[in-house]
Amino acid sequence: MTAYGSIGTALVQVLTNRLGEAYVLTAAGDIEGHITEARGLYRGEALAVVRPKNRDEVAFVLKECAKAGVPVVPQGGNTGLVGGGVPYGGVVLSLARLDKVREIDPINATITVEAGCILKAVQDAANDAGYLFPLSLASEGSCRIGGNLATNAGGTAVLRYGNMRDLTLGLEVVLADGRVWDGLKGLRKDNTGYDLKDLFIGSEGTLGIITAAVLKLFPKPYSRVTAFIGCSSPYDALKVFQRLREATGDQLTAFEYVPEFGIEIVLKHMPGSIRPLAEKHNSYALIELSSPQKDADLQGQLEAVLGEAFEEGLVQDAVIGSSEAQSQALWGLREHLSEVQRMEGGSIKHDVAVPVSRVAEFIDIATKACETEMPGVRVCAFGHFGDGNIHFNLTQPVGMDKAAYLSEWERFNRIVHDIVHGVNGSISAEHGVGLIKRDELVLYKDAVALDLMRSLKRALDPQNILNPGKVVSIGDNAPAALPK
Amino acid sequence: MTAYGSIGTALVQVLTNRLGEAYVLTAAGDIEGHITEARGLYRGEALAVVRPKNRDEVAFVLKECAKAGVPVVPQGGNTGLVGGGVPYGGVVLSLARLDKVREIDPINATITVEAGCILKAVQDAANDAGYLFPLSLASEGSCRIGGNLATNAGGTAVLRYGNMRDLTLGLEVVLADGRVWDGLKGLRKDNTGYDLKDLFIGSEGTLGIITAAVLKLFPKPYSRVTAFIGCSSPYDALKVFQRLREATGDQLTAFEYVPEFGIEIVLKHMPGSIRPLAEKHNSYALIELSSPQKDADLQGQLEAVLGEAFEEGLVQDAVIGSSEAQSQALWGLREHLSEVQRMEGGSIKHDVAVPVSRVAEFIDIATKACETEMPGVRVCAFGHFGDGNIHFNLTQPVGMDKAAYLSEWERFNRIVHDIVHGVNGSISAEHGVGLIKRDELVLYKDAVALDLMRSLKRALDPQNILNPGKVVSIGDNAPAALPK
Repeated sequence: MTAYGSIGTALVQVLTNRLGEAYVLTAAGDIEGHITEARGLYRGEALAVVRPKNRDEVAFVLKECAKAGVPVVPQGGNTGLVGGGVPYGGVVLSLARLDKVREIDPINATITVEAGCILKAVQDAANDAGYLFPLSLASEGSCRIGGNLATNAGGTAVLRYGNMRDLTLGLEVVLADGRVWDGLKGLRKDNTGYDLKDLFIGSEGTLGIITAAVLKLFPKPYSRVTAFIGCSSPYDALKVFQRLREATGDQLTAFEYVPEFGIEIVLKHMPGSIRPLAEKHNSYALIELSSPQKDADLQGQLEAVLGEAFEEGLVQDAVIGSSEAQSQALWGLREHLSEVQRMEGGSIKHDVAVPVSRVAEFIDIATKACETEMPGVRVCAFGHFGDGNIHFNLTQPVGMDKAAYLSEWERFNRIVHDIVHGVNGSISAEHGVGLIKRDELVLYKDAVALDLMRSLKRALDPQNILNPGKVVSIGDNAPAALPK
Repeated sequence: MTAYGSIGTALVQVLTNRLGEAYVLTAAGDIEGHITEARGLYRGEALAVVRPKNRDEVAFVLKECAKAGVPVVPQGGNTGLVGGGVPYGGVVLSLARLDKVREIDPINATITVEAGCILKAVQDAANDAGYLFPLSLASEGSCRIGGNLATNAGGTAVLRYGNMRDLTLGLEVVLADGRVWDGLKGLRKDNTGYDLKDLFIGSEGTLGIITAAVLKLFPKPYSRVTAFIGCSSPYDALKVFQRLREATGDQLTAFEYVPEFGIEIVLKHMPGSIRPLAEKHNSYALIELSSPQKDADLQGQLEAVLGEAFEEGLVQDAVIGSSEAQSQALWGLREHLSEVQRMEGGSIKHDVAVPVSRVAEFIDIATKACETEMPGVRVCAFGHFGDGNIHFNLTQPVGMDKAAYLSEWERFNRIVHDIVHGVNGSISAEHGVGLIKRDELVLYKDAVALDLMRSLKRALDPQNILNPGKVVSIGDNAPAALPK
C-alpha cells in the first residue's frame, strides 16, 4: 500500500465499509492469484482486490477510485494471454460475483448475462432454453463473459457466428467516474446515435468496465458432420475451403488448419490419439458442417465437394466422422494442439490474421522465413484458417536451451509481423493487445489510428485510471510491455 | 457567402484552385439540389458545393475548411430521410465523384469501394464476380455507399445478413482536420485496439468523412422461395416467424409484415396488382427462404412449417411463389407500400425497433392507442418484422386537411415513442437521427449515453465543423430539429 500512502489506506477503508471485509482482499496470499497471469509471464502488484457483488457496488468502487486517483484493473477469469489483466498498482476489480443470468428471451433469441458469468455457464443456460450460444474457446470453463467482451474473444465458431462483438446486442458499462451507461437493449436495429457498444467491446477495460450484456442466441444445430482432410499444401486447403463456402454457405461452421508437425506432437503426447488418415500429408483441415434442420443431408453435401476435390488432387485423403464419437475424436486432435506444444519446449507465439485469400501464402512464406532464420525451428502454424486467423507458433529446435530460444522472441516477431503487415494483416487477431503487444502496435498500426485511440482514451478516461498502460499508453508511468 | 465574409471568399478560391472551377459550385441553380432533401421537409443554405475527385482532395477540403473554421456537410446520394444531409451554412462536400470499385477479392469474399459508389453499382459488381452484396433498400438506384455507411443502413436483407455495420470490414476516413485514417483492411478478425470503424459507421458525417470501405460478399443464393401468408393477428405472425427461424435457420432471408390496410392501398393505386390471397386477413407476412445450394428443398421446408401452422390455425391462408415471376409479384406488394401511402394524403412516420418478442404486442397496442387518439386515422404499420423493426406510419383520416393533420406529428411521436421506450426499443431503427430526431433523442436516450456521444464528438471534432447540429448538438448555433 505504500505507493498510495494514506490515500490508499483511506480508500481501502471506504471500500471495505461498503463491500464488507470479506470482499476487499489485501493479504499477500489472497491477492497472489490476481497479480499474476496464467503463464507466469507477468507479475504485478495491487493495493487490494475488491469483489463487488453488483453493478452499484462496481460503480461505487469506480467513483471512490476516481476521487482518490487510484487505478482500477478489471478481471474476469484472468485467463487472458496478453497481460491485459495484470495490475501495476491500484485496485483489482474482480467481476466474479456478478454471475447471474438475468434473463432469457427465447422469442427475441437473446440472453442477458452479468460480466462475471463463466462462458460455459452461458452456453449451458442457452442450451437449457433450447438455443445455441456459439462462442467457444479453450478456456471456456473458466473465462468469464466480461473478459470475452473486453477482448472481443474469437475461437472456433467465428467462421459461422462471428466473434464476441458480433454476438452482442447491448451492454451495461460503468465509466471511469462511476457513472453507469445502461445500454442493455436487445435490438437487432438501433440507429440512435454513435455506436458506444462497440467502443467498449475489445477495449480491454481501458475505457469502461462492462458489468452486463445482452447476447444473441441461435437455433441449435441438430445436424452436424465433421471431416478431416489431408492436402499437399495450404494452397490446396484454401481451394477446398473456397469450394465448401460456395456450395454450403453458412452450413460451413468450422475450417481449422493443422500442420503435420501438429499431428505428430499430438500423437506423441496424447495417449489414445490416433493418426486420422493412413498417410502423412503436408496440411490438414478439420471441417464441420452443421444445420438447424434435423434431416439436412450434410454428409451428402460434404462428400460431393470433397469427392470432386479428391478427383482433382486438391484433397489427398479424407475421413468423415459421422458419429458423435468420431467427430469428438477428430476435434480432439485440434483441441489438444495448444497443450502439447508446451511439452516440446519453448514456444514463440503469434496470433495473426490476414485476408483469407492470403492465408496459404502467409503460412508458406512465414514458415520458410522462420526456418531460414533458425535452422531446426519447428513451425506449428494452426487454427482458424477460414477466418484468415493463424496461431503462428514456433517450437524450439530439439535440444536448444529454452531460455536462449525464448530470448529470440522479438527477432521472430519482426519476421512474422513484417510479413503479416505486408499483406495488410493484423498482429493481434483474437487475443487482444494488453501489455505484450502494446509497443508492437506502435510499429505496425496506422499512426492516425493510434492517435485516434489516444484521443478516445483521454475523452473517456481523462485521469488514466482504467487499466492504465494497457492497449495504448497515454501516461508517464506505464509498465514495460514485454515480460522481464 | 455573407455569413463567412472574406474568409468564405478566400476559402472558395483556395478550393477552386485545387479542385478546378467545374467542381466548386456556388451558383444558386447549381447548389439547389444539395441544400434541400428529397421530401422537401428541410431547406438549408451553403457557401459552396465541392466535388472532390479522390481521397486526397477530400483531405484538402477538410484541412482548408478546418483552417477557416467553416463547416463541412458530406453528401452521397442525398436520399436520407432524417435531414442529415441538409447544410446550414458551410461547404457541402459531395462524394459522388469517388465512385470507383477499387478491388474485388473473390477468395477473401470482399469488395473495396469508394464512398460515392451507388449501391446498385456495388450489388452489380458483386454479382458480376459471382457473389452477393446483400444490402438492399428502396433507394438503391441512387443512394451511395458512403451514405449507407454514415447511416448504418438497413433494409430487407438485415434478417439474414445484418445491416451496413455488419457488412463492413474496413474503412478509409478523412478526419475533421484533414488527416486520413487508413483502415482499409479486409480482415475477419482484428483485435489491435479500439474499434474505430464502428465509431464512424452510423455517425452521419459528424465524426469523420468516410471515403472508402472494404465490404463483405456472400455466396449467391441459387435457390429461393417466396410465400405470402395471411394471419388473424400479428401475434400469430410472430409465432410463425419463430417456427420458421427454428426450422430453417439462416435460410430464412426475409420476414416482412404487411397489414390489410397496406394491401388495400396497393391494390387501389398500383395498376395490375392482384390480391394475393382469396380472403382478407388482419395481418400478412412476406416470407423468403434462400440458399447457396442449387438443389436445396426450400419449398419442402417452407410447406412443412406452414402446413403445421395452418392446421393449428396460426396461418389462415398462404400462397407460395415458386417461379421468379410469382416471387416478384409478391415482393411488389411489399415494395409498393412506401409510394402508395403518399397517394392517401399526409403520413406521419415512425421508424422504430423493439425486441422481436414484443413486435406483435407493439403493433397491437400502438395501433389501438393511435386510433383512440384520432378516430379515423389509418395505421400503416409494416416492414422488417423479423428484425423487430416496424415503419409505424399513420395515414391521415379520409377528408381531413393535410396540413392540419401533419401538425399533429409531435403528438403522435409522443404516443408511439413512449410505447417503444416502454419496451426498451429504439426510436430510430434504420434511418438515423439527422435533424428530425435529434431533440427526440434527448427525451428517450440514456443521459449518460448522450453525454458520452458529446464527449466523442468533442474529441474527434473539437471545432464542431463536421455536419454540425446533426445527431447530437454541442454548439450554440445548431439548426432547429423539426421542419418549419
